[in-house]
Amino acid sequence: MKLLRVGPAGGERPALLEEDGTLRDLSAVVPDVDGALLSDDAALARVRAAAGARILPALDPVGLRTGPPVARIGKIVCVGVNYHDLVAEARMATPTEPVLFLKAPDTVVGPDDTVLVPHGSEKTDWEAELAVVIGRTARHLGSDAEALAAVAGYTVSNDVSERAYQYERGGQWDKGKNCETFNPLGPWLVTADEVPDPQALRIRLWVNGEPMQDSSTARQVFPVARLVRYISGFMTLYPGDVINTGTPAGAALTRPGTRYLRAGDVMELEIEGLGRQRQELKDA
Amino acid sequence: MKLLRVGPAGGERPALLEEDGTLRDLSAVVPDVDGALLSDDAALARVRAAAGARILPALDPVGLRTGPPVARIGKIVCVGVNYHDLVAEARMATPTEPVLFLKAPDTVVGPDDTVLVPHGSEKTDWEAELAVVIGRTARHLGSDAEALAAVAGYTVSNDVSERAYQYERGGQWDKGKNCETFNPLGPWLVTADEVPDPQALRIRLWVNGEPMQDSSTARQVFPVARLVRYISGFMTLYPGDVINTGTPAGAALTRPGTRYLRAGDVMELEIEGLGRQRQELKDA
Repeated sequence: MKLLRVGPAGGERPALLEEDGTLRDLSAVVPDVDGALLSDDAALARVRAAAGARILPALDPVGLRTGPPVARIGKIVCVGVNYHDLVAEARMATPTEPVLFLKAPDTVVGPDDTVLVPHGSEKTDWEAELAVVIGRTARHLGSDAEALAAVAGYTVSNDVSERAYQYERGGQWDKGKNCETFNPLGPWLVTADEVPDPQALRIRLWVNGEPMQDSSTARQVFPVARLVRYISGFMTLYPGDVINTGTPAGAALTRPGTRYLRAGDVMELEIEGLGRQRQELKDA
Repeated sequence: MKLLRVGPAGGERPALLEEDGTLRDLSAVVPDVDGALLSDDAALARVRAAAGARILPALDPVGLRTGPPVARIGKIVCVGVNYHDLVAEARMATPTEPVLFLKAPDTVVGPDDTVLVPHGSEKTDWEAELAVVIGRTARHLGSDAEALAAVAGYTVSNDVSERAYQYERGGQWDKGKNCETFNPLGPWLVTADEVPDPQALRIRLWVNGEPMQDSSTARQVFPVARLVRYISGFMTLYPGDVINTGTPAGAALTRPGTRYLRAGDVMELEIEGLGRQRQELKDA
């Protein structure tokens, strides 16, 4: 099934998107993530066409956004350098184990919300990513089967990054990963039963209509099951935690001859079967 | 005033600790942080002596702990290499701007709760830190006065770290900072009006009664006001966010001839005017 929140800004309600495009209100439902419903992306267009409707992620950070979420976001664990095509484009060494960092849940906005270019930023960049949503508490998982059983579902994530802040201001990457609005998430949470193979999904991103990223999760260095197992060995994963599993080749940082984002630009991104996002950039 | 949660495990209630050691139940109070109440550390001893009482931080991560908190923790921003005595002990260069990283709020436990040594860990280490709790939304603050006005109060934090995971497993520091139970916080949140100079607080930590850290926040490379201003230029700070402002000299990582922690060890830490913590180590 596809879970989201939708409605007039400030009055978004948790909902289930039916196959025919109708929305079933989930406000009274306990925030559990299971069930099954197939849908297509045309349904989202119908949702978007509804007058004044804003879409929010099914998951929510702590009380900063409006309307009840399907589940609270606990933490966002991000994976760096996790696509073979990115490794090739950036001429980096392939990591021998996953590179991890955190992103604050308060960076999460809806899939079609405005993304803010930070004050004075000259290197605001995109990163289309497959996001994994955790459904069960996981510690020291011992097998891929256990890891996949801990996954509630999948969604689209844009791990927006400011490269000067990330690499040129000393220390860790976090300064460039946690600016306000830097993690569009959604449009919906697709439950795991509808994603039979998370390693066979086309992932694409456009800027102002021009294709920038076009890859497949088949090119991940560490696949979803391995990532969930690995992370569970260092930190406990809880329901509502999100894993941003890394971006393929084609971000401005590594793509030859590409300029960074500025106000007025439009990012669109899509993962096969998981829907599409669209964000306009504005100055903060 | 001093804010905390206390009561039998599973039934902890938000409370205000009066000067005479009595507790005023705050369950019905809106989770705002203001007011004034002076107290002494003997009061905590009386609280601890209460039968079966467990103390939890006034702040809480997202629904993982029991009982209502005074405020939700949004994110935990940590500062690395922020004491001149640590720089000298570790023979590092003094940072020219603050080093930042994040810690997941789900690592937070009470000030006297057990800390778990991760499976197979050989380098579990302590870090006594002054924690700043944010009380107002802060973006691009322009002055030290604005920065201090955004601070709700202060508390004691133990930024427990696994050094092999932090430095020897590739990538960023996060693998060694986010193990379960790795951020004891409390015992109480002391409102800012009771801390006239956050740069004049003695900070100490003992392991099995032996003094390991003994410094003063006067030795911080970047003082609290500068940190809050600086961080607000990269990410928006919200009420309930916590800043761990760095640890002085004397962690096992940098202290000559010191062994790392193992099950059975006891950490105690204290900041002048902010109270004392005590954690026993157990194997995860």
